[in-house]
Amino acid sequence: LVTLEEFIRQHLNKVENNSVLPFPIRNASLSANKTITDYGQVEDCVYFLNKGLIQVSVLKNDEEKILDFFVSGDFFCAYSSFLTQTPSDVRINTLVVCQVSVIRRIDLMQAYSTSLLANQLGLFVTQQLYLKRTQREKDFLTKSAEERYKDLMNRNPSLIQQIPLAKVAHYLGMHPESLSRIRKSIIF
Amino acid sequence: LVTLEEFIRQHLNKVENNSVLPFPIRNASLSANKTITDYGQVEDCVYFLNKGLIQVSVLKNDEEKILDFFVSGDFFCAYSSFLTQTPSDVRINTLVVCQVSVIRRIDLMQAYSTSLLANQLGLFVTQQLYLKRTQREKDFLTKSAEERYKDLMNRNPSLIQQIPLAKVAHYLGMHPESLSRIRKSIIF
Repeated sequence: LVTLEEFIRQHLNKVENNSVLPFPIRNASLSANKTITDYGQVEDCVYFLNKGLIQVSVLKNDEEKILDFFVSGDFFCAYSSFLTQTPSDVRINTLVVCQVSVIRRIDLMQAYSTSLLANQLGLFVTQQLYLKRTQREKDFLTKSAEERYKDLMNRNPSLIQQIPLAKVAHYLGMHPESLSRIRKSIIF
Repeated sequence: LVTLEEFIRQHLNKVENNSVLPFPIRNASLSANKTITDYGQVEDCVYFLNKGLIQVSVLKNDEEKILDFFVSGDFFCAYSSFLTQTPSDVRINTLVVCQVSVIRRIDLMQAYSTSLLANQLGLFVTQQLYLKRTQREKDFLTKSAEERYKDLMNRNPSLIQQIPLAKVAHYLGMHPESLSRIRKSIIF
């Protein structure tokens, strides 16, 4: 279980042990396969995943595609909807029982207007989300399915262990059969 | 010509006319078709484009693909390289004569450690970059070439006017002939 305070100490080089968060949070436990933010909903919270596994999907015609996964210690939300306050084109749901810390948008905006720490945290998290999305876009443009799988294994081995093979294949944009073939051809 | 001070007043709701930047900048004029950051280079600056047009490319095998464009009033740099301090896998070059304000990474990092304004600016710019990249990724997953072109026209008509058709096609991931066909089929 990862706390938000630990995340701040670890990533923002804040050494104070008694650091007070610059915004209120609410802790919650969510059941497996629960939709947190649905298609068409306007996102008004940010979530910190203390423990669990989150899936982000997008609809193409009537087919659902997996856009992203989040693991313990990650921030997540329908961030484009959160930023633009327009209906979300992604769906966010739990894959297992999850523990989350919830930050309301109104409280975060308030903190951003005055708190150095809130802005440093928002900047760091947004930079990490940017890196993740950019990497994925470049991978689709420049790498083969096998290369994308090997990269994911190197970058996030725990994710591959936690998620069913069919979902990993889906996320990488390949057929489960192709991924099975690639996995067999890789010498571990 | 857009200044960095104007950008801050416009986007960060800072009303003071005598706002002082939280970091030093250097203004420069760059010739057309000049490489600012090359493949393999570690990015150590952020640029604000006062005036001009910038192209970002990536290599797939030996073929160059266009990843992004930036127009007047945009921040740009090889941001993944800047954040991770690893060699850039993108090339950034001017398409026309450009006026830029240059911020050194070391100066920005210093400002981030103490300045609320620097963090608010970095957060806003990173959020905008995130939205742009996410939109492009979702578009490739969920939209046809024609829909991607129409969206680009709606979102950034000035970009389409400034950039040769072949480059726009390249950016949208289609053949120039296909784009010509689509343009003819659209009633303006």
